[in-house]
Amino acid sequence: MRILYHLTLSPVARKVRIVLAEKNLEFTLKLEKVWERRPEFLALNPAGEVPVLIEPDGAVLAGTEAIVEYLDEAYREKLLIGINPVDRAEVRRLVAWFDVKMNFEVTENLLGQKMMRRYGPPGQPNAQPNSQAIRAGHANLPYHLDYIAYLVERRRWLAGDHFSVADISAAAHLSSLDYLGDVPWEAHDPAKEWYARIKSRPSFRAILADHVPGAPPPKHYADLDF
Amino acid sequence: MRILYHLTLSPVARKVRIVLAEKNLEFTLKLEKVWERRPEFLALNPAGEVPVLIEPDGAVLAGTEAIVEYLDEAYREKLLIGINPVDRAEVRRLVAWFDVKMNFEVTENLLGQKMMRRYGPPGQPNAQPNSQAIRAGHANLPYHLDYIAYLVERRRWLAGDHFSVADISAAAHLSSLDYLGDVPWEAHDPAKEWYARIKSRPSFRAILADHVPGAPPPKHYADLDF
Repeated sequence: MRILYHLTLSPVARKVRIVLAEKNLEFTLKLEKVWERRPEFLALNPAGEVPVLIEPDGAVLAGTEAIVEYLDEAYREKLLIGINPVDRAEVRRLVAWFDVKMNFEVTENLLGQKMMRRYGPPGQPNAQPNSQAIRAGHANLPYHLDYIAYLVERRRWLAGDHFSVADISAAAHLSSLDYLGDVPWEAHDPAKEWYARIKSRPSFRAILADHVPGAPPPKHYADLDF
Repeated sequence: MRILYHLTLSPVARKVRIVLAEKNLEFTLKLEKVWERRPEFLALNPAGEVPVLIEPDGAVLAGTEAIVEYLDEAYREKLLIGINPVDRAEVRRLVAWFDVKMNFEVTENLLGQKMMRRYGPPGQPNAQPNSQAIRAGHANLPYHLDYIAYLVERRRWLAGDHFSVADISAAAHLSSLDYLGDVPWEAHDPAKEWYARIKSRPSFRAILADHVPGAPPPKHYADLDF
């Protein structure tokens, strides 16, 4: 049995779920409250973060890029990082754009403040969301939607002709932000059309069915014609 | 001609310099003052960051992991990310440990505050180093030196039997911190012995010869018997 330790709204855990689904690999999700720092979980990943993947043969994989690169090497029927080295570099450049730059400028400021503080570690002294961070997140998000527009006006998918983990990374972040109702789709048509294409993929179905107890998503979240 | 845009003390740019040297690939360094946001540089990398590599055939590669993975795919005589998928996942897990976790907990707090503010963007309003961040950086660094010790007490190199980009990533961060005199080597013998092994590699020579105008390194910085 393949097991993925995750948090429902973690964009990087969602990314691995989508990659697994694109590759038709079955897996069981286990919710890991990382803030509890369970010794058994820290033994799997000393960084104490999700995602962590346990392969059917018992191999333990930790770290988002490590897992995604592993899956693309081990299950080669449908490649998600491209074929030739230069194309693969473009995929990876964009993965870092979304998982590092957008994560720092937007996701941490919105999701980190609004949800992780509310539904994360209980009794945390700084549990009050930081309104300055939230303002910064809202101010930065349009630049990333514009960058997506810039790319898809020139290419079929973000990194080129083929659907890749660049698309999956960007969509994973946006899906978590969209769960909060924080994505201004109406002002960003090209990004919205690209996201609609991803939303309709079977690999995205489980993401759209997610539900955090006590924090339902807005109505448009799972709507393919949002 | 191969060109690498860099900043002298950027750990991720140093990492690419070491990878290129390990692979015996010649290159010309160009110092890029990223805070000037030169349009010509932004055209190469819209993220506005170093490292950026221009290959002799004109291919532009941006983003540290994208560059390193590209080099390991394109120049295969000496592989630095391992061979089988599980070993490669362990290398990449540790790369993320140092480039993301240690970078956030230590490097940004020390190097970011002390040097980038002083030698980076001139006239920046917040140019005063943040003493709380510096204290946090000093407090967090020993945990990473202990983790290196934990690994090298069980393995020949950080990720296993072979020297890899995991070693290069960790050494690149520590080399920049060591330039500031901020690494408490005397209290961390196993990490020190591991670093001494890396310091003596020919690929590290150029790093040890680095000199930032107006900010000379401490005497032990380039000393192989520090």
